Amino acid sequence: MDSRGLIEAYWRAANARDWDAFGLLLHPEVVYEVPQTRERVRGREDYLEFNRTWPGDWRAEVVELMVDGAKGLSVIDFQVDGESMTGISLFETSGGLVTRITDWWPSPYDPPQRMTSRIERY
Amino acid sequence: MDSRGLIEAYWRAANARDWDAFGLLLHPEVVYEVPQTRERVRGREDYLEFNRTWPGDWRAEVVELMVDGAKGLSVIDFQVDGESMTGISLFETSGGLVTRITDWWPSPYDPPQRMTSRIERY
Repeated sequence: MDSRGLIEAYWRAANARDWDAFGLLLHPEVVYEVPQTRERVRGREDYLEFNRTWPGDWRAEVVELMVDGAKGLSVIDFQVDGESMTGISLFETSGGLVTRITDWWPSPYDPPQRMTSRIERY
Repeated sequence: MDSRGLIEAYWRAANARDWDAFGLLLHPEVVYEVPQTRERVRGREDYLEFNRTWPGDWRAEVVELMVDGAKGLSVIDFQVDGESMTGISLFETSGGLVTRITDWWPSPYDPPQRMTSRIERY
């Protein structure tokens, strides 16, 4: 399975709560990091538990998927309990398994003061 | 120039404040969007002005660069006035020019309550 197929299978298994299939995509030493909170989860078992216990009736819709060799990146629309969040996940893979995930959750904020007026809001 | 070379040249020109070189990389109808603030800048001239007027003594260090055909993505460590921010930029290109940039600025936040203790902080 190439990186694209691996990431597609990852989100498919997550959405299906098929944790056996999900676990088969992970390297035993997988590392998951959230740079914004400086949280880290190490190893397949703990990362499975982290996902299995994620609260709410959530669903991840992949809106962007890029691959570059052994790396891949997805942008998801993460829908949970009527809310929508954006998740950006950088995947590193080896031998057809996910070895590292770096996960960002950019949230809305008010625009800063800009030095030009050539900006519109949408 | 392929997508990788284009994105490398983009950040090199930005860091050098070489706005002539920067402008040559942009499609006349380039669109720049920040989903978190719902800001949009349209067209080469306005996007040049947006960048030219960005305040502070800033520098973008590319820490991740991926390309997938006509798309590319960079993660930058954006250093300005002693602070460091993370910028994630998704580039769409056509004919060797940047046609669209989607820019996320994920900022630090406190970890939410997790349903498992198998998480460390770093």
